[in-house]
Amino acid sequence: MEHARTHVLTGARLAMTVEPVTGPGAIVIEGERIAWAGLQSDLPGAYSRAPSRDLEGRLVTPALIDCHTHLVHGGNRTREFELRLEGASYEEIARAGGGIVSTVTATRGAGEAQLLAEALPRLDALLAEGVATVEIKSGYGLDIETELAMLRVARALEAERPVTIRTSFLGAHAIPAEYKGRADAYIDEVCLPALRAAHAEGLADAVDGFCENIAFSADQIERVFAEGRALGLPVKLHAEQLSQQGGTQLAARYGALSADHLEYADEGDAKAMAKAGMVAVLLPGAFYFLRETKLPPIAALRQHGVPMALATDCNPGSSPLTSLLLTMNMGCTLFRLTPDEALRGVTLNAAKALGLDDRGIIAPGKRADLAIWDAEIPAELAGRIGFNPLHQRMFGGRPC
Amino acid sequence: MEHARTHVLTGARLAMTVEPVTGPGAIVIEGERIAWAGLQSDLPGAYSRAPSRDLEGRLVTPALIDCHTHLVHGGNRTREFELRLEGASYEEIARAGGGIVSTVTATRGAGEAQLLAEALPRLDALLAEGVATVEIKSGYGLDIETELAMLRVARALEAERPVTIRTSFLGAHAIPAEYKGRADAYIDEVCLPALRAAHAEGLADAVDGFCENIAFSADQIERVFAEGRALGLPVKLHAEQLSQQGGTQLAARYGALSADHLEYADEGDAKAMAKAGMVAVLLPGAFYFLRETKLPPIAALRQHGVPMALATDCNPGSSPLTSLLLTMNMGCTLFRLTPDEALRGVTLNAAKALGLDDRGIIAPGKRADLAIWDAEIPAELAGRIGFNPLHQRMFGGRPC
Ligand SMILES: [Zn+2]
Ligand SMILES: [Zn+2]
Repeated sequence: MEHARTHVLTGARLAMTVEPVTGPGAIVIEGERIAWAGLQSDLPGAYSRAPSRDLEGRLVTPALIDCHTHLVHGGNRTREFELRLEGASYEEIARAGGGIVSTVTATRGAGEAQLLAEALPRLDALLAEGVATVEIKSGYGLDIETELAMLRVARALEAERPVTIRTSFLGAHAIPAEYKGRADAYIDEVCLPALRAAHAEGLADAVDGFCENIAFSADQIERVFAEGRALGLPVKLHAEQLSQQGGTQLAARYGALSADHLEYADEGDAKAMAKAGMVAVLLPGAFYFLRETKLPPIAALRQHGVPMALATDCNPGSSPLTSLLLTMNMGCTLFRLTPDEALRGVTLNAAKALGLDDRGIIAPGKRADLAIWDAEIPAELAGRIGFNPLHQRMFGGRPC
Repeated sequence: MEHARTHVLTGARLAMTVEPVTGPGAIVIEGERIAWAGLQSDLPGAYSRAPSRDLEGRLVTPALIDCHTHLVHGGNRTREFELRLEGASYEEIARAGGGIVSTVTATRGAGEAQLLAEALPRLDALLAEGVATVEIKSGYGLDIETELAMLRVARALEAERPVTIRTSFLGAHAIPAEYKGRADAYIDEVCLPALRAAHAEGLADAVDGFCENIAFSADQIERVFAEGRALGLPVKLHAEQLSQQGGTQLAARYGALSADHLEYADEGDAKAMAKAGMVAVLLPGAFYFLRETKLPPIAALRQHGVPMALATDCNPGSSPLTSLLLTMNMGCTLFRLTPDEALRGVTLNAAKALGLDDRGIIAPGKRADLAIWDAEIPAELAGRIGFNPLHQRMFGGRPC
């Protein structure tokens, strides 16, 4: 049973195991996978001679998963942030090139090498807090070429760092200036051809959209989802963020992986999500940054058993956030999640939101993506603000 | 004019200079101090042969100053955070040892070595974001011996790291269990003797208090302030955080350095602060963590020219926050400060809140405590959430 790459971590406080382990724990790692996890005193004799490392009581969780980001993009919107706070009018901000238009312009102008270079510090900030899987969306190209470029850069990040990247095609994110007032034409002439091209290049793991007054109607999103279904891709949706648009119900009809944001969703939406087996991806960073006051229907989601995930929504306009630990704290402080729900929301439920069943829990057969923390109880991860207790990250069984 | 310890930083974007420097900037450092700062093209010839370092366009600000913390304390309150979110009643939390009592118990039981060891990771988190001066309060001892121990530990941190520590005696922070219902006796028998002892040992740079329904009345605080004045120590106050108690007006009458929190202060308080030359220290971390909705009177503070500072209020109960950059973002996002006000609030105005006129601005004669950032404009410091663009910190002219 032992071989060169088998090793044992001992003296661990284990969180997110299948059954609670209430005592000094051990994890056996074989290659990239977890072979065994449980009470150290129950460690099978077969592993007794494997090399071992004493974690001296440190907390071990699955490595964290950020299941909703716009990490790859050009430019930044700091000047816009400043202008708003200095009291500039919308016209002045628009004249100064503000809004999503500015990100689209910067992204189109950047080139893949520059997009990669600018994404790396943001990715590194996530990894420094124990993240090992990151979802990244397109959606700031809004032309065929740049949508593909964004997804290529997202894929390329996997070669730069020890991380798993999952991509989502988000052509239906916004209507570019050149299609103003012609959203259907944009869907036909750009979004659907870009989706087919992305799929042909193997660049899209899922199809996403933004169903909102300021973006696309449920009918328009449905055309994108239908194409995704035809291509065999799972779907997900930015839904009910600023108003109730029926996006969640649409996503449920398409068996979506998740509906994301959900501030304006109601109990009917929660029921539909439960029935469809969807994850609710909550994004408290955007809630905070936009000073939203309407909370997602947390009680209804709980009551109907909808798994809740938490993600950074890292993007330059409404959530310039690169800390998943802070996101956990915001989930607790602003949305009143428990620390246990917050941890589950960035591990097991985040994995489920990405359609991944090989991670997010410490159990035999799962990837040995682990986070080792200088902490005693899991609640310390969500309970502090702006403090990183990571001791070490492991990716596929290797410390990094 | 040159000597061995003179060196020049070139290629800097300078912020927080006396006059704006709009072009590539230079700073001349002699020993621990700034000798000259301005446009690189104006660099006096006397410095032309000094060793120089090209900062390649990086942003340089004064090192940051966290002017209100409770960084030294025993224990943590994560379990209490968890219990609250799990819906435990106040009685259950009290039975589980929650509330400030738990921090007092842990602090009294810790011993100075342990208090130091537990404070260091929090201090390191601040320093990693470019902080070089930190204020630390007593106030979790609430007996003479432990109040002194907290201040000794705060002083000892200066020997452990390149940082300036300023201490505040905060015996009037809470009424310990053994004096329940006998606040005046606590002031007489513990607080005032502890203050005199702290002063005799040189442990207190200032005298602080908590004027609130749940703590001390303005009359009780005044007795502490009177003693501080007799000892020649400046005063400051936690004022109008949860209700209006007249603390700000009292502090103004005593010529306080600052009044801190201020959510329930009004325009009359702002006027009094202006007249007394006080700083308003805003603590958005506690506002966020406690889900306060009443904002400090920012418009009145601006109108009457009260300098505003921002600080973490790092403490285990109501602001377990160790990021001054995040505090800046919260100041902008939650309190609608401009990024410029946020930067001034953690540099020049924070120095003023500590009675220090030798730092917080890039000008000849000031300490060469600097922060060099991978950023182009100062607004990037406040505009991102959970991202640390620090390139290098300098303390007294030395990179560290
Ligand atoms: Zn998004
Ligand atoms: Zn305080």
